[in-house]
Amino acid sequence: MRAEIITIGDELLIGQVLDTNSTHISSMLDEIGVKTVRRQSIGDNCDEIKTALNLAKKNSSIIIITGGLGPTADDKTRDCLCEYFHDELVLNKDVLADIEHMLGLRSMTMTPRNADQAMVPSKSIAIRNTKGTAPGMYFSDETHVIVSLPGVPYEMEAMMKKFVLPELAKSYPVKSHLHRVVTTIGVSESGLADTLKDWENSLPDDVSLAYLPGAGMVKLRLSCYRADSQTEALMNKLVESLDPLIGKSVFTVNGETMEQVIARMLLSTHQNVAVAESCTGGSIAQLLTSVPGSSQWFRGGVVAYAENIKVAVLGVDENIIKTHGVVSEEVAISMASCAMNKFKSDWAISATGVAGPGGDSQKNPVGTVWAGIAGPGISYARKFNFFHNRARNISLATLFVVNELRKSMLKIK
Amino acid sequence: MRAEIITIGDELLIGQVLDTNSTHISSMLDEIGVKTVRRQSIGDNCDEIKTALNLAKKNSSIIIITGGLGPTADDKTRDCLCEYFHDELVLNKDVLADIEHMLGLRSMTMTPRNADQAMVPSKSIAIRNTKGTAPGMYFSDETHVIVSLPGVPYEMEAMMKKFVLPELAKSYPVKSHLHRVVTTIGVSESGLADTLKDWENSLPDDVSLAYLPGAGMVKLRLSCYRADSQTEALMNKLVESLDPLIGKSVFTVNGETMEQVIARMLLSTHQNVAVAESCTGGSIAQLLTSVPGSSQWFRGGVVAYAENIKVAVLGVDENIIKTHGVVSEEVAISMASCAMNKFKSDWAISATGVAGPGGDSQKNPVGTVWAGIAGPGISYARKFNFFHNRARNISLATLFVVNELRKSMLKIK
Repeated sequence: MRAEIITIGDELLIGQVLDTNSTHISSMLDEIGVKTVRRQSIGDNCDEIKTALNLAKKNSSIIIITGGLGPTADDKTRDCLCEYFHDELVLNKDVLADIEHMLGLRSMTMTPRNADQAMVPSKSIAIRNTKGTAPGMYFSDETHVIVSLPGVPYEMEAMMKKFVLPELAKSYPVKSHLHRVVTTIGVSESGLADTLKDWENSLPDDVSLAYLPGAGMVKLRLSCYRADSQTEALMNKLVESLDPLIGKSVFTVNGETMEQVIARMLLSTHQNVAVAESCTGGSIAQLLTSVPGSSQWFRGGVVAYAENIKVAVLGVDENIIKTHGVVSEEVAISMASCAMNKFKSDWAISATGVAGPGGDSQKNPVGTVWAGIAGPGISYARKFNFFHNRARNISLATLFVVNELRKSMLKIK
Repeated sequence: MRAEIITIGDELLIGQVLDTNSTHISSMLDEIGVKTVRRQSIGDNCDEIKTALNLAKKNSSIIIITGGLGPTADDKTRDCLCEYFHDELVLNKDVLADIEHMLGLRSMTMTPRNADQAMVPSKSIAIRNTKGTAPGMYFSDETHVIVSLPGVPYEMEAMMKKFVLPELAKSYPVKSHLHRVVTTIGVSESGLADTLKDWENSLPDDVSLAYLPGAGMVKLRLSCYRADSQTEALMNKLVESLDPLIGKSVFTVNGETMEQVIARMLLSTHQNVAVAESCTGGSIAQLLTSVPGSSQWFRGGVVAYAENIKVAVLGVDENIIKTHGVVSEEVAISMASCAMNKFKSDWAISATGVAGPGGDSQKNPVGTVWAGIAGPGISYARKFNFFHNRARNISLATLFVVNELRKSMLKIK
């Protein structure tokens, strides 16, 4: 079963808005065994919409469109689809009631602009929108399903999950398949590929391997589009066979993020953590608290950005800073142990470094970061050199400092 | 001048990796007056690459491809392009030297896999890569320029800026154009559209308006593809004419982010800020410190996640929490004033609320957030209700708390 995604919006083509919808829809389709074969992004222009639809129809039986359904004049998708299907707009009373309800929640009154959104092509099923005012449209015939959804990501997501995916599952027999993702940290793509060369060559023919490099991490994705009872056991065996080869670099074999791994580990040991951040500026705390329920294991943190804050708020000894400089092993260790004391936590992690673009007074190069760790009987710091721009140095520092906590908890050197 | 972007990678089509390259390239091309008319994402498959190229060549004279240049077997782009152009691979010694240098920096030695990356199609100009090992390729004839770049975003970016954009500017006369972006906060797209109806109808024919809704913000983008001396003055006049209509909701007319606005304001008044965060978990500090040079105006912050940390680390009076509950006006005000004292800052902002998915003991609905502000003669809190999921509640709270600081500094109610 093949699908094509078309995202519509001038803002996508001038690069002002990141297209997260294509990625999200691909991933939702993949979960029900539908393979996305192409994604197109085009402008708010009826001719281009029709061309894209004709192209997509040649390759795929499922076409998901997002965008261009807003209430303003630059949105053309609904009227264009109406034309494409030689259809006419009719009032949908359920949708009108939805819009009234939605506006009521926000203490707003119905305007003609809002009411017009309840006009839906007669040949389509209107997809109700519980998060916004624009309904979606579901057109289907013997050969194709064509779905149009709003471009607002959380509206699109809700409508995919509530209506489109269940509806597709009804119309099409879903072919089973399996992906497994093994995530490594701190090794390069080509280093991994060299280590895994023989292993890769010995993979069964219907299993494919892809290397997905990301910031500081490389994911290995094993895919098997096959629907028999042995598939899962085979994939488990393949994942296990990686352990002796690259086990030390792997931090999850089930698609967890680094912060989810930390959450799971701390929950299972009934421990908690605090953070003391300088160059990462709150990014470590933000990453850890992005996990729902993190209040069970995250105590809090200090962002000691100005130098004297490290002394005044965190309690680092002024002489340590004077002697060793603010970006140093000693200060990283002291920040972590001060955080552990202040927050009465089981573990504490710290980061002090030079995110850039400016350097520091001790002439450490941009990208130098010391990670400090304090825990039960543990106190040390490790130096990293990232050599990137500010945003990337901060996100890499965040990831590697948190990884250092993971390694300490597992007693991995 | 029309361009098409093709991003290649199976990982894009199963939704595991967000395609930021398309957006970034569109935006870079837009800056030199090249209009992106379509973007395609396809898998690592030579037939699909050829189909995409043939399609793109019909519409556009510039085609930028990213992805599929890695050293591993799943990467097919170079060999496919070689086939497409009936070309052969030849060793490029400069590229080989680049790779050696790059590996040296990382204390790695050359493997056959690395060396193979120095083989480049003879008909292309090799684009040197200063951030990684895979070179790019630049093919050009009388009608088309076809460029292939690595998928790693910062490698692609450096090669676009250093080689591709200057090269395109040489080959093609760049047509001038102008975009202006006016960013509003706290008003809905349809509300704005209603307010601006007459204004929009009176726009000159060659100026187009688009509404770009985002999280908590709506951007208005005015575009004028015209190259005469009056264009800039016209656009300035149009932007100014918005002020009496929606001035209170506009926080920038020159594309700044909220954090850049705050940075500019604090720098110009020689003031600084500290933060005390609960439900936002470090996200406010992270947003503010994402601005280069933020150490000049950001003192630091406390992430007081566990309830007793608000008392023990931040210094909030325990009785205020007991009497009013942790998610309350009083606690938000106290958190801000404690942060101002502790960090000796001119301003302090705080957030306490329920990010979700779980509720709080006082039965505040998920999405309830109190923003506290303390500053010169100022101390108050404002309540927000976001009613979204955890990630969105946190990011909206972050934005609106920081906006409250902006409003306080400007004395806007």
